[in-house]
Amino acid sequence: MTDIASALGILQRGTHEILVASELRKKLESGRKLRIKAGFDPTAPDLHLGHSVLLTKMRQFQDLGHEVIFLIGDFTGRIGDPTGKNVTRKPLTEEEVKINAQTYREQVFKILDPDKTEVRFNAEWFSSMSAADMIELAGQSTVARMLERDDFDKRYSAGQPISIHEFLYPLVQGYDSVALETDVELGGTDQKFNLLMGREVQKHFGQTPQVVITMPLLEGLDGVQKMSKSLGNYVGVDEAPGAMFNKLVSMPDSLMWRYFELLSLKSNEEIAALRRDVDAGANPRDIKMVLARELIGRYHGEEAATNAHRSAGNQLAEGELPEDLPEIDVDFEGSAQAPIAAVLNRSGLANNSAQAKDMLGNGRVRVDGEVVARDHMLETGRSYVIQAGKKRYGRIILS
Amino acid sequence: MTDIASALGILQRGTHEILVASELRKKLESGRKLRIKAGFDPTAPDLHLGHSVLLTKMRQFQDLGHEVIFLIGDFTGRIGDPTGKNVTRKPLTEEEVKINAQTYREQVFKILDPDKTEVRFNAEWFSSMSAADMIELAGQSTVARMLERDDFDKRYSAGQPISIHEFLYPLVQGYDSVALETDVELGGTDQKFNLLMGREVQKHFGQTPQVVITMPLLEGLDGVQKMSKSLGNYVGVDEAPGAMFNKLVSMPDSLMWRYFELLSLKSNEEIAALRRDVDAGANPRDIKMVLARELIGRYHGEEAATNAHRSAGNQLAEGELPEDLPEIDVDFEGSAQAPIAAVLNRSGLANNSAQAKDMLGNGRVRVDGEVVARDHMLETGRSYVIQAGKKRYGRIILS
Repeated sequence: MTDIASALGILQRGTHEILVASELRKKLESGRKLRIKAGFDPTAPDLHLGHSVLLTKMRQFQDLGHEVIFLIGDFTGRIGDPTGKNVTRKPLTEEEVKINAQTYREQVFKILDPDKTEVRFNAEWFSSMSAADMIELAGQSTVARMLERDDFDKRYSAGQPISIHEFLYPLVQGYDSVALETDVELGGTDQKFNLLMGREVQKHFGQTPQVVITMPLLEGLDGVQKMSKSLGNYVGVDEAPGAMFNKLVSMPDSLMWRYFELLSLKSNEEIAALRRDVDAGANPRDIKMVLARELIGRYHGEEAATNAHRSAGNQLAEGELPEDLPEIDVDFEGSAQAPIAAVLNRSGLANNSAQAKDMLGNGRVRVDGEVVARDHMLETGRSYVIQAGKKRYGRIILS
Repeated sequence: MTDIASALGILQRGTHEILVASELRKKLESGRKLRIKAGFDPTAPDLHLGHSVLLTKMRQFQDLGHEVIFLIGDFTGRIGDPTGKNVTRKPLTEEEVKINAQTYREQVFKILDPDKTEVRFNAEWFSSMSAADMIELAGQSTVARMLERDDFDKRYSAGQPISIHEFLYPLVQGYDSVALETDVELGGTDQKFNLLMGREVQKHFGQTPQVVITMPLLEGLDGVQKMSKSLGNYVGVDEAPGAMFNKLVSMPDSLMWRYFELLSLKSNEEIAALRRDVDAGANPRDIKMVLARELIGRYHGEEAATNAHRSAGNQLAEGELPEDLPEIDVDFEGSAQAPIAAVLNRSGLANNSAQAKDMLGNGRVRVDGEVVARDHMLETGRSYVIQAGKKRYGRIILS
C-alpha cells in the first residue's frame, strides 16, 4: 500500500470537508482494506461529469486498495411518497429498480473498478426490518436535531409541511452504514447532515463511526453555475467523443484546474507538472486537450480519445475540414426533420441555442460545405458534415 | 335499543368534548352495534376511581348494546425507551404484559360487562408490521401538526429533546383504530390530540373516522386537585369497603354531584330525583351514602355495600362502636410491627398522615377502646378495633 501521506494527498484533493481527518488517517494507518460507501437514488440515472466527481473519489480509494460499495437506495424508492401528494415520486417497481441499476452499472464501471466494487441495495436489510426496529431507529435522533438540517429548517420556518416519514430517511441512510459496516461515506455537500447521522447511528449500534467526506458540486462549462442538464452547461458521460471534446476544449481556461482536481485520476504530481508547463508558456488549450483525452478515454476508450485529440489538433481555416471528423449522434426521437439550430445545440457544436442562432445569423455555419440560414431544416435518418465557426465540426448522424 | 335522544343524554353526561356530536348521533341512528375503544398502558395497573371515569362511560355504551374494546398498548410498552435515557421505561417482557393484563381484567370487569368486552393487545397487528409500513404510516402526519400537541410544543420551546420515535406513537395509536375499525374512541382530555390522529389515519386507510369523546379528570376527595395516589386524595378500586365508605361519605358536599355525573351508572332521571331530594331538605350525607353504596357494591358486591351502609348509618358518640364494623385489610408486607399513624393513614381512617398525627396528638384515637399515643405500635398478624374521632372506625386486619 502507498505511503499514508501520499494517500491522504490524493484523497483530500478537491474535497469540501473531511470529518474527521485525523480519523481517516488512523483508519488508513490500520492497514485494513477500508469499506467506502456512497449512496445513489434508484431513479433512472442519466449521469454527467458533475455526478462523476464522487465516483472519481471512489476510484481513488480503489486505486489505493480499498473496497467501494455502490449503494442503491431502492428501499425508500420503492415506498415512493406515502403522503400521496408528490405524484412525481411514484413508488418504483422491483423491475424498474433492476433496469435502473443495470444502467448505473454500465455508466459507473467506466470509472469504478468492477473487481473492487460491491453493488448493493438497501432493501436487502430494510425489507425484512420490523416496525419495532424502525421505532428503535427513530429513537436515535431528535426533532430539534432534524430541524437543524438546512432544508427542513427552511421549510419549517416557511410553514411548509414536512411529513414525519421525511425525518426517518436520514436515519435509514444512517442505518445503511451500520448494515454495511462502512468506514468512510462520500456524498455531496448537501448530504453532510445525512452522512453525519450515519456516525450517530453507528455509535448506537456499537460500531466505530464512519469518516464523512463531502465533495463540492462541479461548476458547469460556464464556470459559474453548477453543472446541470437543465442549465445546458454540462457534459454527459454518454455524449459522443466529438461533442465531449468540443465542450471540454472550449471551457474557460480558469476552469481547467478545477476539472483536473475533481475529475482526473492523475496524481497530484502529474497535475503539478502540467501547471508548471502553463507557467512556462504552454497553451492552455493543450492542457485542456490532455484532460479531454483522459475523460474521453474513460468513457469511450483509448481509440476514440486518440482520434478526437488528433482531429482537433489540426489548425483549420473556416470552412476547411479535418481528416478525422468526430462522429456525433443526435436523436430527434421520431421526427422526420430537425431544425439546424437544435442540431448545433444538441451536438455540442454550439454551447447553447443563443450561440447557435448567433452563428447562423453571421453565416458561420456550413452543412456539407454550404452556408445555411437560421431556419434551415435537416432530415433525420442520414448524416451531415457540419462546421460551426473555425473550431467546431463533426459528422452529425441524425436519427 | 333505547331511543336516540335518551342514549345521547346518558352518553354526553360528564364528557369534556365530543368530536363530532352530529357524527355520534348518526352512528347511533344507524342501529349498528358500535365498536367503542379505549387504550390502556401495559404497565402494572393500580386503579383508583379517577381511572374508572372512562370505564364507566364504556359501560354506559355497553348498557346501550354496543361493543367495547379494552385495548392494551403492549407493542410500545415492549419497546420501552429506545433512546436508553429513560431508565424507568424499561421494555416489558411478554410475561409482564400478561400478568398486568390479568390484573386489569380483575379490576375492570367490576365495571365492564365481560360479555360485551374484547380485550385486545396492539402487538397483535404491530408485531408483524414492516418498517416500510411504519414509514407509510409516518407519512400520514407532519412535523408542524405534531408540534401542535401541547406537551411537544412546550418541550420543543423549552429546548428539551423530543426523540423522533415519540412522533410515531400518536400514529401508532391512530393505526390501532384502523386495525380495530373503531367507531368511537374514549380518552382523557390529555389524549385529545392522539384520538384525533386516529381520525386522520382512518381516513387515509379508507375508513369512516371515529368519533372522539374526551372525559375530564376526576377531582380528588379534596375537590380541588385531580385524583392521584401521590396526592393522597384518592379512592383505590381495591380499597376495603369500610375505607371506601369513610372516604366517600366524608367528601365535601359540593363534590358529590360531580362524582354521580362521572362515576354512577344511574340514569340522568334518577340523579335528577336525588337532586330534588336535597333541594327539598334531604341530608347531603344520605346522598353520598347512596353513591358509596353503588360504588362499594360495584367493587365488593352487594353484601359489603349493605353492611358498610348500615354501619355508617348509626350515629355514634366518640368512643361508641357500631354493631357492624367495616373490616379493613392493611398489609405491612412482612413487618412484625406497624406504627399507629401509618395504620390510620393506610386504612383510610385518616385522610393523610398529617391528620393521623393530629388526631393522635389530641387523644382522639382508640385501639380496642384505649386511647393511644403518637408512637404506639401495633402487631401485624392480628386485628384491632380502631376508632378515629366520632365518625371513623373499623376492624383493622393487619398483615
